[in-house]
Amino acid sequence: MTSTSPHDSVTRSGYAWRTAPEESVRADLRRLRELNPLTHCITNVVAAGFTANVLLALGASPAMVTAAEEVADFAAAADGLLINVGTVTSADVAAMTTAARSAQSATTPWVLDPVAVGRLRYRTELVDDLLRYRPTVIRGNASEILSLAGAAGGGKGPDSTADSSEAISSARALAQRTRAVVAVSGAVDYVTDGDDVFEVAGGHVLLTKISGTGCALGAAMAAFLAASDTPLNAAVSASAVFAAAAELAAEQAQGPGAMATALLDSLHLLGQAPFPRRPPTSR
Amino acid sequence: MTSTSPHDSVTRSGYAWRTAPEESVRADLRRLRELNPLTHCITNVVAAGFTANVLLALGASPAMVTAAEEVADFAAAADGLLINVGTVTSADVAAMTTAARSAQSATTPWVLDPVAVGRLRYRTELVDDLLRYRPTVIRGNASEILSLAGAAGGGKGPDSTADSSEAISSARALAQRTRAVVAVSGAVDYVTDGDDVFEVAGGHVLLTKISGTGCALGAAMAAFLAASDTPLNAAVSASAVFAAAAELAAEQAQGPGAMATALLDSLHLLGQAPFPRRPPTSR
Amino acid sequence: MTSTSPHDSVTRSGYAWRTAPEESVRADLRRLRELNPLTHCITNVVAAGFTANVLLALGASPAMVTAAEEVADFAAAADGLLINVGTVTSADVAAMTTAARSAQSATTPWVLDPVAVGRLRYRTELVDDLLRYRPTVIRGNASEILSLAGAAGGGKGPDSTADSSEAISSARALAQRTRAVVAVSGAVDYVTDGDDVFEVAGGHVLLTKISGTGCALGAAMAAFLAASDTPLNAAVSASAVFAAAAELAAEQAQGPGAMATALLDSLHLLGQAPFPRRPPTSR
Repeated sequence: MTSTSPHDSVTRSGYAWRTAPEESVRADLRRLRELNPLTHCITNVVAAGFTANVLLALGASPAMVTAAEEVADFAAAADGLLINVGTVTSADVAAMTTAARSAQSATTPWVLDPVAVGRLRYRTELVDDLLRYRPTVIRGNASEILSLAGAAGGGKGPDSTADSSEAISSARALAQRTRAVVAVSGAVDYVTDGDDVFEVAGGHVLLTKISGTGCALGAAMAAFLAASDTPLNAAVSASAVFAAAAELAAEQAQGPGAMATALLDSLHLLGQAPFPRRPPTSR
Repeated sequence: MTSTSPHDSVTRSGYAWRTAPEESVRADLRRLRELNPLTHCITNVVAAGFTANVLLALGASPAMVTAAEEVADFAAAADGLLINVGTVTSADVAAMTTAARSAQSATTPWVLDPVAVGRLRYRTELVDDLLRYRPTVIRGNASEILSLAGAAGGGKGPDSTADSSEAISSARALAQRTRAVVAVSGAVDYVTDGDDVFEVAGGHVLLTKISGTGCALGAAMAAFLAASDTPLNAAVSASAVFAAAAELAAEQAQGPGAMATALLDSLHLLGQAPFPRRPPTSR
Repeated sequence: MTSTSPHDSVTRSGYAWRTAPEESVRADLRRLRELNPLTHCITNVVAAGFTANVLLALGASPAMVTAAEEVADFAAAADGLLINVGTVTSADVAAMTTAARSAQSATTPWVLDPVAVGRLRYRTELVDDLLRYRPTVIRGNASEILSLAGAAGGGKGPDSTADSSEAISSARALAQRTRAVVAVSGAVDYVTDGDDVFEVAGGHVLLTKISGTGCALGAAMAAFLAASDTPLNAAVSASAVFAAAAELAAEQAQGPGAMATALLDSLHLLGQAPFPRRPPTSR
């Protein structure tokens, strides 16, 4: 049953706890497709192609402009920006810093994806520096969010060694400190602005066997920033659309190859057909 | 009905107007497969993997050699060269310039793909510089060709904001000025040597939802340059093969994930099975 | 019939000649999945995404860390390292050299994939330099192995112009000189420690129409180095798993697009279902 209220919430652990509101997610996706937002990505070479395909399937217009000489103009004009440090090299540092500064000054909303932060000093210092330009959203796995928040953290390369639920408090603290929306990806995704915590269940374990799904989710958040009323809603809608597409895709896939293909098809078809139905989360 | 004359033509707007000649396209594809041309690509990191797979499916031998220290030798020995500025960085500029110079001096035919030219000054200056080394073919979308020809232009990032038919006059003017064959990609592709204009219809709208299809088409043109009698025929044959493969692929695909997979399969199978039949274009 | 002896062998041409022992391959794959080895890849931009997906499908944890500032720490901590020079640029040279040195000093086992060595002077000198850090495994096609061993060699870009069987003697000589295990990929794969030569038949010709399968096989060997008793077994197991997965995949694929998808699915499913049965090689 779909309620007309914005979303269900319960107060737990001292903060409001909400599930992704289906009507709002649908509306955001419709608006994204009308706007076809120009989404500027400075991302890693492993996920670049898949990320572009995810953005196209969603209805956004991806542009992977990475030259330090070009990013300032482009980030200022884009509808949203993603900076993902997955395969950062010294040549990228200037481009990322320039783009972040330009986005801040032009009020282009932007997403920071601090891949493997805490595990490697070079990128940890870069990420600290990028935080000065006030990302609109920070998206990471539990290890990355724990590390950024100053808790233990430091995963196994780009993979998390903690469950996403273990990072909820750290995510809230990080959001309060940085004034960014913080999204923790995992078997269940959590998104918080420092007060409310949204829970997005669904998805599928095969997503963890496809390279770049987390990176592409960060890019999707950058696209949704142009379509949603608030950064919080953008991060929630992107997560919910991914989870719904993954569930649709998993019905047709036995392995990660078919799953990647079906995920792109499902993202493209989503909203043209009904969202998959899911019983209310009972966590 | 297939005529035995090389191709149909009508004179319109003061220049000869032709459709892609099926027999000649088939013969070029057969020759490409016999020759397995070594196709040197200096292309963007987003499309590199897909481009290599497209070239392999076609029957060419792709080589993505990008170090400034290596490209001169390699471009001189290759059967064709692609330079695509999609994700150009300062480190690539020297490599692209060196490769273009070497191709010109060794008479290796080469394709220039001026992604997002006109939109960003840095690459616009690079593209201007590369034109001095006389590309054999220039392939772009309508915004890019309009911009290069000095008309309005400047798309939305890598996407065109104009219809390909709006760029026909600019394409002819650009071809006359540069002595390159100019190919405008879009819902209908137009290819011109400055006099004749070939029209290649077909294809499928799902291609616009797959990242790198235009880039891969440019690479296919570089491969066909070794197989076709003239650069004009090479650009037409590459476009026609892509359009035919896309139509075959679309019969099996509901979304862009399956479409990308089926496009590679169709490129591989094309010529082993008959081309899809299509009614004469009635534009 | 599966024998309980480690593997069949015949003495031919003065050295022991063996086929891949199915039980040992299965055990290595099981162990790899238990260990989920952190596999550090410094590889080319064309194959990076596909390589990560192959490693995930196998059960390894890929990390494509490439900054010269980061690779020393990461290579020292990883379970295995791959260095693939396919699209090497001057910025990569320091990273590759640093990573190789670190791997040697930390005793991280590592795989060298000398793409197109012998064909281009710049990378040939780099590969010579990397050999000083004692790769655990060298994997290449016949042209590359012939070239490294000082025989003719030098293929057509990244493609071999020789049959893998032509490189067996050179592979043995190279293994004896470098004390690395040497793997020659081709229609039949040969793996040698300088004494024994293992033969891995199977696979499928469509693999040659997918970009990066050889590169991904090198990465798989880096992952198996953490799971197998010896480097020789690691290289043999990786080759045998690829061949088995390719045979499974080919049953469902008509072209290279579907084949790439099915290969990932088969790698993921392998060991969950029985290996495909194959009559003894009769070479």
